[in-house]
Amino acid sequence: MTQKVVKLYDKGGHVCLFFTGLVEGEAIPSNQLVIVDHGEAALFDPGGELTYTPLSIELSKHISIHSLQYVFASHQDPDIITSLPRWLMHTDCKVVTSRLWSRFLPHLVSGFVSGKMHKSLDDRMVEIPDEGANIRLGKSFIRAVPAHFLHSVGNFHFYDPISKILFSGDVGAAMTPGQDHLPVENMDDHIPLMEGFHRRYMASNKACRAWVRKVRQLDVEVMVPQHGKAFIGKQNVAAFLDWFEELNCGVDLLT
Amino acid sequence: MTQKVVKLYDKGGHVCLFFTGLVEGEAIPSNQLVIVDHGEAALFDPGGELTYTPLSIELSKHISIHSLQYVFASHQDPDIITSLPRWLMHTDCKVVTSRLWSRFLPHLVSGFVSGKMHKSLDDRMVEIPDEGANIRLGKSFIRAVPAHFLHSVGNFHFYDPISKILFSGDVGAAMTPGQDHLPVENMDDHIPLMEGFHRRYMASNKACRAWVRKVRQLDVEVMVPQHGKAFIGKQNVAAFLDWFEELNCGVDLLT
Repeated sequence: MTQKVVKLYDKGGHVCLFFTGLVEGEAIPSNQLVIVDHGEAALFDPGGELTYTPLSIELSKHISIHSLQYVFASHQDPDIITSLPRWLMHTDCKVVTSRLWSRFLPHLVSGFVSGKMHKSLDDRMVEIPDEGANIRLGKSFIRAVPAHFLHSVGNFHFYDPISKILFSGDVGAAMTPGQDHLPVENMDDHIPLMEGFHRRYMASNKACRAWVRKVRQLDVEVMVPQHGKAFIGKQNVAAFLDWFEELNCGVDLLT
Repeated sequence: MTQKVVKLYDKGGHVCLFFTGLVEGEAIPSNQLVIVDHGEAALFDPGGELTYTPLSIELSKHISIHSLQYVFASHQDPDIITSLPRWLMHTDCKVVTSRLWSRFLPHLVSGFVSGKMHKSLDDRMVEIPDEGANIRLGKSFIRAVPAHFLHSVGNFHFYDPISKILFSGDVGAAMTPGQDHLPVENMDDHIPLMEGFHRRYMASNKACRAWVRKVRQLDVEVMVPQHGKAFIGKQNVAAFLDWFEELNCGVDLLT
């Protein structure tokens, strides 16, 4: 698959890069986002062992690996954060995730790797409380927006108030392999590509509505999911919110 | 922590072993189950990198590693199945899990490990459809019982019709470190140890009820969760089902 890097924002010492096409083989394709503010970098949902090497090579073309302050993990899945031991070993980053996963993520790290680290794993984790938090980055911050039960029970999306980008994890995901670097053009054509996944993997309409209420309070220009194309422009984001608010899914469909 | 192995069943060529206390350090303690029927072995929720070495050493005292036919994964979490690349490399096992995770689990496997395997990853995966399945083991079978949204959106528990053991993953989990090899003695004392976890990590009462209905149709003598003590005897299992059926949790509590 063709690797692509899209520069979503670059102004006043603040840069947002969107990586697509780094996943090869039988795994579901996934995207990664990097935000740099005044020399401090944050990486969102870096993925697992499969993506670590191609991502770290690509990343080093754009930033110094030593500037990596944070790895943000929307949730605990294999395609999200299972490269954790590598980032802990090779950088000084802290890992930001829901408090629900802070005692589960250490299962990813062997005794050998723990022994090589200079600090305890606890000291490298930033636990987000259920209500969310602002995490300082450079001269700005990243807001962790609660997205619980979409699909993970402890789940956050990440909002950058400068670029107005919302990294929305699995929400808004679609299978558009090879095309993920291009924005969604037509919602009517795009909905059928999202529908099956969202109906089965999102836990209930009540969770969708709680999330839509929160996102409407933010000033979102771009919504970047972890799989598939980004939604660019307020009109496309609003169209997504209108669709998702009405979606019956998960336990709503359980018989 | 003290490693313990409890023999839950041993009759007519059918053996069930329950491993506790293998997890060290900052991670949540977890249990593993092994079932052997007529020389064919299955391992349930083996965990991550952290547990791989102690578990494989302990396991090799009881079974030949070459008899391992299956690794069953209740869901996709770090403490469940992130040691996948190790089991794929060092044994000929197949990995049995929900169809929802079959394209996510390959993110755990680096290009290097994939290259070392003789078959494609697809050939080593057994995908369980949402409605469940029976998987042959030796002269018997293991039943995959749907437990979706408890907590994972694609989640199975595993029932052994010979020993009448239900491996119930995160359902029935509690924090009783150092005591996990002992059975639950008194449900009134045990409920406060389970309550906070189940309210926050289970997605909704509707999912609890759907699961309780299914489990009541099985003849369960022992319920073994992945964290904490086992429930031994029909009376204790029934008491758990009565409590869980009434639990408000997850999106029920979302405001």
